[in-house]
Amino acid sequence: MSSAPTQRVNRLDRRKARTRAALIAAAQTIIAEGRTNVPILEITQAADVGMGSFYNHFETKEQLFDAAIDGVMDAYGDLLDQLTAAIEDPTEVFASSFRLTGRLHRKEPELSRVLLNNVLRLLSAEDGLAPRARRDIAAAVAAGQFDVEDVDVAVAMTAAALLALGQLFLGDRDRDVEETTDRVTEDLLRMFGVPRARARKVSRLPLPDLAAPRPAD
Amino acid sequence: MSSAPTQRVNRLDRRKARTRAALIAAAQTIIAEGRTNVPILEITQAADVGMGSFYNHFETKEQLFDAAIDGVMDAYGDLLDQLTAAIEDPTEVFASSFRLTGRLHRKEPELSRVLLNNVLRLLSAEDGLAPRARRDIAAAVAAGQFDVEDVDVAVAMTAAALLALGQLFLGDRDRDVEETTDRVTEDLLRMFGVPRARARKVSRLPLPDLAAPRPAD
Repeated sequence: MSSAPTQRVNRLDRRKARTRAALIAAAQTIIAEGRTNVPILEITQAADVGMGSFYNHFETKEQLFDAAIDGVMDAYGDLLDQLTAAIEDPTEVFASSFRLTGRLHRKEPELSRVLLNNVLRLLSAEDGLAPRARRDIAAAVAAGQFDVEDVDVAVAMTAAALLALGQLFLGDRDRDVEETTDRVTEDLLRMFGVPRARARKVSRLPLPDLAAPRPAD
Repeated sequence: MSSAPTQRVNRLDRRKARTRAALIAAAQTIIAEGRTNVPILEITQAADVGMGSFYNHFETKEQLFDAAIDGVMDAYGDLLDQLTAAIEDPTEVFASSFRLTGRLHRKEPELSRVLLNNVLRLLSAEDGLAPRARRDIAAAVAAGQFDVEDVDVAVAMTAAALLALGQLFLGDRDRDVEETTDRVTEDLLRMFGVPRARARKVSRLPLPDLAAPRPAD
């Protein structure tokens, strides 16, 4: 008897969470398609939830889109953390994350478009990529590998470099993504005071594989 | 007699040019106010021209906004060219232009907002700031002062650094604009292979005055 109200609340909570997740997933698709001008009704229809449900979760369309972008960035950030977990050297962690992310501009054009269309959010978000970059840069500074006086400036330059890459690839479809990304990584490392030879070497090391690991044949 | 049709054409041309200029000026104000969602009717009213006139000059609102941004950037680029005309050293020309432009984020918040809201355009425009940055970087490379293998990457990184600055200043109203801009300039110069001591010196030289020269008292 005593558990019945709790179960009802839990069921309601679960339904609310499902509705929110459906709205966010629909918004992520719409953002990736570059159609952020759609009316809210189209989003709720795509999410298969009632129009009224929208306002239980979000005050405006922009609030939903922000949550959707945060979700994409945060999931990608988690993936990066997993991929670089085995790397011990802080400069290599930073470089690997940047090199993998730069490559996304061609491998994941929809995610690239989200990055490019949400510059200001990417630079200032409190979760997602910016805090991870801050953490990695601070670790390299603490290890005496980066000569960076202002970590906020370094984070902003990292985000800006990522956007510059996306723009270069959009403007020139034939540009070599790996070569260009690794060069910009090397440039960033030089900017952060890493000696030239080491900056070059670190930005050409083998990378962890972004694709899901396949079982051995 | 023979000049009458020509005069009529010229008067018509002048009126068309005035209408176009009025639309562009109205659009520049609207962009600076961050109200680019306004209907075309509101733009034509602000410009004091008929709704039909709009479509004689532009196919879409976006086309007008692009022309408005190009106009702002090009006028600013001309001003930079004048201010740096007396500087002979290519590295100093590049550094002065960047340092003056970074300072605009606080001195000219409306222009700053235009920069931040039009990242992709800024990075890829064929006139305005990007081609000027390309010219200055190429000159420093030709003079053996910059060690840059890919000028397009260097231009994109310069634009990205400018945006990063704007974002830093938006996020922290107390941040020292001069100090931060000069540090990022120094970082860019280091990235372009300028030796550290010279990068520091060049990014702290006295700057030309952006304000219009005043007659001596």
